[in-house]
Amino acid sequence: MLLIGERINGMFKDIREAILNQNPEPVRHWANYQYKAGADYLDLSPGPAVEIEAQPRIMAWLVETVQKAVSLPCCLDSTNPAAIQAGLSVHQGKAIINSTSAEQKKMDTLFPLALKYRAAIIGLTMNEKGVPQNAADRLALAMELVVNADQYGLPMEDLYLDPVVLPCNVAQEQVKEVLETMRQIKILATPPPRIVIGLSNISQNCLNRNLLNRTFLIMGLAAGLDAAIVDLTDENLLEAVAAARILLNQEIYCDSFLSVFKKRR
Amino acid sequence: MLLIGERINGMFKDIREAILNQNPEPVRHWANYQYKAGADYLDLSPGPAVEIEAQPRIMAWLVETVQKAVSLPCCLDSTNPAAIQAGLSVHQGKAIINSTSAEQKKMDTLFPLALKYRAAIIGLTMNEKGVPQNAADRLALAMELVVNADQYGLPMEDLYLDPVVLPCNVAQEQVKEVLETMRQIKILATPPPRIVIGLSNISQNCLNRNLLNRTFLIMGLAAGLDAAIVDLTDENLLEAVAAARILLNQEIYCDSFLSVFKKRR
Repeated sequence: MLLIGERINGMFKDIREAILNQNPEPVRHWANYQYKAGADYLDLSPGPAVEIEAQPRIMAWLVETVQKAVSLPCCLDSTNPAAIQAGLSVHQGKAIINSTSAEQKKMDTLFPLALKYRAAIIGLTMNEKGVPQNAADRLALAMELVVNADQYGLPMEDLYLDPVVLPCNVAQEQVKEVLETMRQIKILATPPPRIVIGLSNISQNCLNRNLLNRTFLIMGLAAGLDAAIVDLTDENLLEAVAAARILLNQEIYCDSFLSVFKKRR
Repeated sequence: MLLIGERINGMFKDIREAILNQNPEPVRHWANYQYKAGADYLDLSPGPAVEIEAQPRIMAWLVETVQKAVSLPCCLDSTNPAAIQAGLSVHQGKAIINSTSAEQKKMDTLFPLALKYRAAIIGLTMNEKGVPQNAADRLALAMELVVNADQYGLPMEDLYLDPVVLPCNVAQEQVKEVLETMRQIKILATPPPRIVIGLSNISQNCLNRNLLNRTFLIMGLAAGLDAAIVDLTDENLLEAVAAARILLNQEIYCDSFLSVFKKRR
């Protein structure tokens, strides 16, 4: 599975200040930290404090700052297509666009961008009506994303469907629906699209966040999850991933699986 | 889910010696310990050191010693039907027989015993040919157990199917088959039979046993697992169960879910 580091996000105070002051140091720090902890991708989000006209410039600056520090591809996280495009135009390697929804206008803007830059793209199973309340309705939107991606000629392995994880303390009955959505996404197409989640959402405003995060991630991996945006500072999470990969036969068992699969660099 | 404490088993040195010396103290100690840790049932196994003709007497002694110490029902663990019967004859409450396989002779002996004592019974998805190597063959044996239990008039909620967990370092590709078996057991009958596993088998002779145990238990719970024979001394396992119960909507979310659902007495 792909571990996508969540930490370079303007929601965090140090990154917000780094962006506002154009100070590359905190961005470099978290790029290196997450790289060493085993990240496969780094999510980059200017966050809500950046004015809309500055977003493209900031996204490009984040990409360049990160890729000067570490040789990792990035997941460009913005609701602003101009910021996505600016990031893609300077990105080295295969980027992931984060994200489109199943809204036609967004798909018609972002799928062509993904194709132009040979990027992968995350498709959220939600639309202008919001997040569906059960697996069947999430799957209907997943199918809309699959059909539109296919019509644009996007390779199915470049489509990461996100079944939209909600906090378990406010939408507790939705957790099972998300897991069921994952299982069924894998039979929507051949080859199947991939599955990604923003893990930390599951425990937003909960106590024992790390415990809930790793418990849900294990359930997700058993349900077919391919990638997750995660907190790479959470050692117990990385151990859980290593154990899950062994149990799901994604890595050959060895006694030292923890040190091997935590991929410390 | 039901947590079945594994510790009163002649495989452990202190219990083996307690049995050989008819010393109730270690048995009482582990009965109390597992009760306080939140066990719903206590597995009782004389173990391999007890001679066959002594097994019925030892099983009855274990049941009486345990039930004088704590008010918990027991899971009578023996391959000797005479020992099972001796335990059932002195047991208070609803016992679980551990276990029959899908061998006709065993089913014809043990299902009538379960009915006579209104006990539940564990049915292993294996027969004289051994443990099947995939989910489909395990399910065929599960169906034989379901059909035979039904013909004997056993209520389906008293049948606990065990898909037979093997150590992940020698049968790594089997772990996914066991999980798939669990998912499909739930659609074998209405109401469905229950599902139980002996958890510690998954990590036999592995390093990082507790990590593998709790990771697999979480996957099992998401696949429909109803009960597991577990190590109640493993605090991290109990935390994982509490988190899984919240995520699977089996308990209402509250900030104090850890202290509540670990059921410390």
